[in-house]
Amino acid sequence: MKLWDKGISIDKKIEKFTVGKDRELDMFLAAYDLAASKAHAKMLGKIGILSAEEVTAIEAELGKLQEQLENGDFYIEEDFEDVHSKIEFELTKALGDTGKKIHTARSRNDQVLVAMQLYFKENLQQISAKTKELIDVLLGLAKEHQEKLLPGYTHLQVAMPSSFGLWFSAYAELLIDDLYLLEAGLKIVDQNPLGSAAGYGSSFPIDREFTTKELGFSALKYNVVAAQMSRGKCERTVTSNIASVANTLSRFAMDICLYMSQNFDFITFPDELTTGSSIMPHKKNPDVFELIRGKCNKLQSIANEMILITNNLPSGYHRDFQLIKENSIYSVENIKEILDIFIHSIALIKVKEINLKDEKYKYLFTVDSINDLVMQGQSFREAYKEIGGQVQNNTYEPSEGKKHTHIGSKDHLALEEIRRKKG
Amino acid sequence: MKLWDKGISIDKKIEKFTVGKDRELDMFLAAYDLAASKAHAKMLGKIGILSAEEVTAIEAELGKLQEQLENGDFYIEEDFEDVHSKIEFELTKALGDTGKKIHTARSRNDQVLVAMQLYFKENLQQISAKTKELIDVLLGLAKEHQEKLLPGYTHLQVAMPSSFGLWFSAYAELLIDDLYLLEAGLKIVDQNPLGSAAGYGSSFPIDREFTTKELGFSALKYNVVAAQMSRGKCERTVTSNIASVANTLSRFAMDICLYMSQNFDFITFPDELTTGSSIMPHKKNPDVFELIRGKCNKLQSIANEMILITNNLPSGYHRDFQLIKENSIYSVENIKEILDIFIHSIALIKVKEINLKDEKYKYLFTVDSINDLVMQGQSFREAYKEIGGQVQNNTYEPSEGKKHTHIGSKDHLALEEIRRKKG
Amino acid sequence: MKLWDKGISIDKKIEKFTVGKDRELDMFLAAYDLAASKAHAKMLGKIGILSAEEVTAIEAELGKLQEQLENGDFYIEEDFEDVHSKIEFELTKALGDTGKKIHTARSRNDQVLVAMQLYFKENLQQISAKTKELIDVLLGLAKEHQEKLLPGYTHLQVAMPSSFGLWFSAYAELLIDDLYLLEAGLKIVDQNPLGSAAGYGSSFPIDREFTTKELGFSALKYNVVAAQMSRGKCERTVTSNIASVANTLSRFAMDICLYMSQNFDFITFPDELTTGSSIMPHKKNPDVFELIRGKCNKLQSIANEMILITNNLPSGYHRDFQLIKENSIYSVENIKEILDIFIHSIALIKVKEINLKDEKYKYLFTVDSINDLVMQGQSFREAYKEIGGQVQNNTYEPSEGKKHTHIGSKDHLALEEIRRKKG
Amino acid sequence: MKLWDKGISIDKKIEKFTVGKDRELDMFLAAYDLAASKAHAKMLGKIGILSAEEVTAIEAELGKLQEQLENGDFYIEEDFEDVHSKIEFELTKALGDTGKKIHTARSRNDQVLVAMQLYFKENLQQISAKTKELIDVLLGLAKEHQEKLLPGYTHLQVAMPSSFGLWFSAYAELLIDDLYLLEAGLKIVDQNPLGSAAGYGSSFPIDREFTTKELGFSALKYNVVAAQMSRGKCERTVTSNIASVANTLSRFAMDICLYMSQNFDFITFPDELTTGSSIMPHKKNPDVFELIRGKCNKLQSIANEMILITNNLPSGYHRDFQLIKENSIYSVENIKEILDIFIHSIALIKVKEINLKDEKYKYLFTVDSINDLVMQGQSFREAYKEIGGQVQNNTYEPSEGKKHTHIGSKDHLALEEIRRKKG
Repeated sequence: MKLWDKGISIDKKIEKFTVGKDRELDMFLAAYDLAASKAHAKMLGKIGILSAEEVTAIEAELGKLQEQLENGDFYIEEDFEDVHSKIEFELTKALGDTGKKIHTARSRNDQVLVAMQLYFKENLQQISAKTKELIDVLLGLAKEHQEKLLPGYTHLQVAMPSSFGLWFSAYAELLIDDLYLLEAGLKIVDQNPLGSAAGYGSSFPIDREFTTKELGFSALKYNVVAAQMSRGKCERTVTSNIASVANTLSRFAMDICLYMSQNFDFITFPDELTTGSSIMPHKKNPDVFELIRGKCNKLQSIANEMILITNNLPSGYHRDFQLIKENSIYSVENIKEILDIFIHSIALIKVKEINLKDEKYKYLFTVDSINDLVMQGQSFREAYKEIGGQVQNNTYEPSEGKKHTHIGSKDHLALEEIRRKKG
Repeated sequence: MKLWDKGISIDKKIEKFTVGKDRELDMFLAAYDLAASKAHAKMLGKIGILSAEEVTAIEAELGKLQEQLENGDFYIEEDFEDVHSKIEFELTKALGDTGKKIHTARSRNDQVLVAMQLYFKENLQQISAKTKELIDVLLGLAKEHQEKLLPGYTHLQVAMPSSFGLWFSAYAELLIDDLYLLEAGLKIVDQNPLGSAAGYGSSFPIDREFTTKELGFSALKYNVVAAQMSRGKCERTVTSNIASVANTLSRFAMDICLYMSQNFDFITFPDELTTGSSIMPHKKNPDVFELIRGKCNKLQSIANEMILITNNLPSGYHRDFQLIKENSIYSVENIKEILDIFIHSIALIKVKEINLKDEKYKYLFTVDSINDLVMQGQSFREAYKEIGGQVQNNTYEPSEGKKHTHIGSKDHLALEEIRRKKG
Repeated sequence: MKLWDKGISIDKKIEKFTVGKDRELDMFLAAYDLAASKAHAKMLGKIGILSAEEVTAIEAELGKLQEQLENGDFYIEEDFEDVHSKIEFELTKALGDTGKKIHTARSRNDQVLVAMQLYFKENLQQISAKTKELIDVLLGLAKEHQEKLLPGYTHLQVAMPSSFGLWFSAYAELLIDDLYLLEAGLKIVDQNPLGSAAGYGSSFPIDREFTTKELGFSALKYNVVAAQMSRGKCERTVTSNIASVANTLSRFAMDICLYMSQNFDFITFPDELTTGSSIMPHKKNPDVFELIRGKCNKLQSIANEMILITNNLPSGYHRDFQLIKENSIYSVENIKEILDIFIHSIALIKVKEINLKDEKYKYLFTVDSINDLVMQGQSFREAYKEIGGQVQNNTYEPSEGKKHTHIGSKDHLALEEIRRKKG
Repeated sequence: MKLWDKGISIDKKIEKFTVGKDRELDMFLAAYDLAASKAHAKMLGKIGILSAEEVTAIEAELGKLQEQLENGDFYIEEDFEDVHSKIEFELTKALGDTGKKIHTARSRNDQVLVAMQLYFKENLQQISAKTKELIDVLLGLAKEHQEKLLPGYTHLQVAMPSSFGLWFSAYAELLIDDLYLLEAGLKIVDQNPLGSAAGYGSSFPIDREFTTKELGFSALKYNVVAAQMSRGKCERTVTSNIASVANTLSRFAMDICLYMSQNFDFITFPDELTTGSSIMPHKKNPDVFELIRGKCNKLQSIANEMILITNNLPSGYHRDFQLIKENSIYSVENIKEILDIFIHSIALIKVKEINLKDEKYKYLFTVDSINDLVMQGQSFREAYKEIGGQVQNNTYEPSEGKKHTHIGSKDHLALEEIRRKKG
């Protein structure tokens, strides 16, 4: 059953091609379409298009479907091309003419828009919450391991002393930047598009402020053409902001995989987080973090896909927009899973004792040595030359390293200040 | 002259390869390096590493360079690999040992970081301001042309009545979403990285809160490793947020180019904004808007470049980061130019009279016709069938169309409400 | 059951995360793993690791599984993480110790490699064949409609006369370029990686030339490290070459959607290829071609995903590679479906009569007019000025247009020459 | 001076915006425009539009410009918007009316097309030649260091024995795959577009086979619309194929940077290829290879830019195409420079002695140990269990490792076979 069916039979192959994965994907949207349909019905009641009895009947019926959904009994059968057809069919089956009235003053376009934006809104909030949870775990690990030194690298060359405290809390502070982007994304999706119909509004005297309040949107996307064009912009914004979280996690996972290599040997994980090899019995591979890295890199490619699909299309709806549903939902669902796995896994990390006396770390403290000379009165450039000479002549004796005192340094991590930034 | 020169001669070709375009690009950063050097010197004075006289002397010298810069007399000569070497060289030439002390407790890394972030900060503010200016121009055009109808399209098929008022103000409201992202970007770059040195802080007792205040940063990036890792994140964020503005302008330019086609013929521009052809004397091509579209599409590709360069690199500085300077600066400078050109050009638009009685627009008002029936008591689905039947039997008589009353519709544009959203 | 299971229970959530979609995706690879396993077994027989009886038994068992596959009775149950575990399990269940021997001298890595490359090889051949089929359809349409003029546009402005013949055969000739890339891709995947094991070869005296011949590969990827690193390169190459076909089809689909707009009205399609609207009864939307365009644009994003996942990873296998399976297979399966739909649909196109006397096409023949003057002895630049003057003074009288005689022009399409290029 | 100037003054800012970087970029195209202009003039002579004297005069004048170019005396002054205006201006200045005739039967569009394609053609040949040179260098290094073992890694974990011979020649064999793509690209650009004029051919009786032969093109792009649409396709193809070389070099550079880290310490380079730090006197950073990696990653982003600029544009020229010139030329010029630097630098590599007895490499030979048991009659799965047990109980004694005999393995590198593949 297709709502726009004009009685013309359509080749099966074409149908499969056009319906795509909507039935599967729309399960993520069902709850939001039910909520939006309810708000729309109440609004139609308010402006006199539905009677109070009709509104009550529709609300009751939508409530039953909501219950089915919560119990896992809601399906989008093969007969329907999407969740919207399914829900309207059920209303009409139960309520007859009353059910048919629900589509008054709306279009499939704004139905999809409002469901997608509600879905994004709720999920961006969840993603922010999970990100905050991870920040807390990392700040906890930073505190726990704050005394343990780690060689710091630049150009992958041994450079200056770092610490596990610095390392863990660096990623915490970077994730706070990602929160700022998630918040901007939230602001963008949190604008009611309902009432834009097919993108040019409606000749019915609909009350868009009412549905805005009813659905808990913080703002109204006033202009109906702008509302329609939010399809695409929301997806680009959401996937791009999620990509920012993914980028932080990907780089973290790269460090983890590198630091687990026998050539670094800074950290390890319990067996349940590593996997073996089908031919090498000694292997203990960091598959979980490699998959986090790979999945996060994949997530970083999706905003570009959204742009490629929507770019250079003149204003107004095009069927192409159907295709951005898949990977924007994929992006949302994946980052949630990745954050869950990350939170679970990073908490199990085992930090190793690193022998900084090892020959390869000999020059880790040259800058401290230079700074000592500077504190004794030399200019930085002179002191640099002197220590540099010792290194070249192989007469340099590693200093012990000294406490760094400034804020944000290895010995003054400012964990509480960082925690406060996350709001 | 290279600061790290160890007296070993380096092949010219390699030098060209490694220096790249830094001399040219760093002209965009010079003012910010001067400002940051001044703040750093004052801080060194505060903690006793420089005497009051030394600070005064350095400030004076930096002031002279700033003046040169403003007068167009500041150059980064071939002898220098970047602006930082140049400035330190000038200080040392003028002040001898005192000049050499400026590099105490900082590294090239945090020098570049702080200069880039100050550059981004000032420019994001400018880009926001220009975007707001464009929004105002568009809201003005919307008001001016609010009565003029335009066919609305879906699937590029004639669909429902739209208007020039809706069209202009749609892009205004979409640009407001872009402002939200620019603001999030601003928040991310507006965090002082100075004092992170090579990415692991300093053993000097530096005062990072002092430089934060001195440079007008709203926040401190506490963790020194996080500060270093902001290189890359800032560029990704800034180019991605600029891409959002670019996306909006690109789609607008696509509409303009299409609407200028003889087959639409909705708008035109004065001759100074169009170009001719080397073989077709009648041509009046919308090159300016085609170039806006193309340049905006190019800007949409840059965040992906930033990701590709920085992705999967372990934490800590890598020389690869030098390469993200070019296109992040390109992105900033271009969007400013595009916004200027857009503001100038769109104001010159000439809106044409569109004959909606033309046969091809015959079905523009079918939805209004349906809605009329609904208002007379039919269900939407029934009315849809009736009008649909008339269309199929070719008996449909176009209605006149009626005023849309709801907020955000063609006859109720809510321009003031939209203006208020831009803050 | 996992082959590398060391008896340590693994959290279910982690397992789901690590197994991913392999069970589903591996159904595309099953036939190739069976073929490669058979070749590997025969080779082990040849070098004396398996006895002749063992080889025969394994071949028979693999044959049964192949039969199941062809009958639709082959499944990868929840107990298995991938098709490789499944097949080895079945061999072991049926043959005991003999089954266990199949994994001698190979690794999961080269098993996946060889199966993927065989899958790509067969499919690139199919994609080429379908592309050639489409080329033939287009050349047929070009011939059929060769006399029918079409306005040619530059900058979306009416420019010079074109024709349906030119339009159809242009895309045919562009698709031939895409064939060249598909062929290069074929050459790259058509190199046997089997025997590279985990990426460093085997201490067994395996015979890689034997398996190369047995599997019908044209060449051997000699170096085992290179063979392992083909993972990623094959996927980048294949998806990038498919993207080239997709780009051609996407641009074609854009033309089609534009030309179906009432403002162009050059072509139409029968009802079974268009869809209606849930609120506008007159709509006849080109959804099939919009979806082709959108899906092709999506396909153009995938090579970038492949790069993002694999980039900056040091040599040697990483688990991240598991993730490039999904979208490289998606890319292959989709382009085949798109080509099928395109071939089916384009054949149904209805070409309309275009009234080139319409005012908006008035200047279509100005260049012909100029050329007439040139043929009468004026320089091109002078003639351009004269006709340009007429256009500006509104005194230009459209010429009739004349036959173009040169090869590749609207009146000399060279269809047979183009057909010959496709090989 | 603009050829299409209609006497209307154009604002300077707009002019800068529209001219863009053409003057600078077109210096790369000047030689090709001269060659194509010469071929075009000769063809006009052949069909009687130019007299023999005119052709001779034009050829002589083009010859002078060619000489200027070779002597470095050719400039595109501010007065010209591009190289094409400049050359036509010089012809007209020298030859009067005869000069004006050169633009007969061509358009700026096909002038740019043919110049770009000739540029790509010559450069793809050079890039292939340089790639082959690098392959030879690598095969030489492989031979030189074929006996030296290297730990092989999977998942960045110590896995199985590899060797410098395998490592060097792996990249050689991968580069051969890149040659296949370069060849396909060459085939695509090696088709004469001249005569397509503005994209719809010419009413003059031009002889396109003549110019094809004259310019040394292997084929003719017959269809004039296809020829015009090659703009964009050539750039996508060329940048995408260059990206494949870049990908190989980027991964190689990543290995190099990692292997130079003190934690691996497998290789080093002489001082002229490394750089120091402004604050750490001991640093010896692999900047050259980091920049190769970064630049190669940047090159991998460019095909996506080409797609973003050209995607979803209807057929026919659009001004947007001007913008793909910059980064396609950038891509070509950069890969040549990178290949030169790579060839120069890799030859200077110093391979270190690696102590494989070190504790961290203890399990490097477990697979060899398993295989020994298999050769003594155990099934692979049984032997895997036995050695796996020893590893877990910490009783495993590293074996010495044995010669691998199969083709493509560390002890049978097949360097000559690989060399032969490169053709």
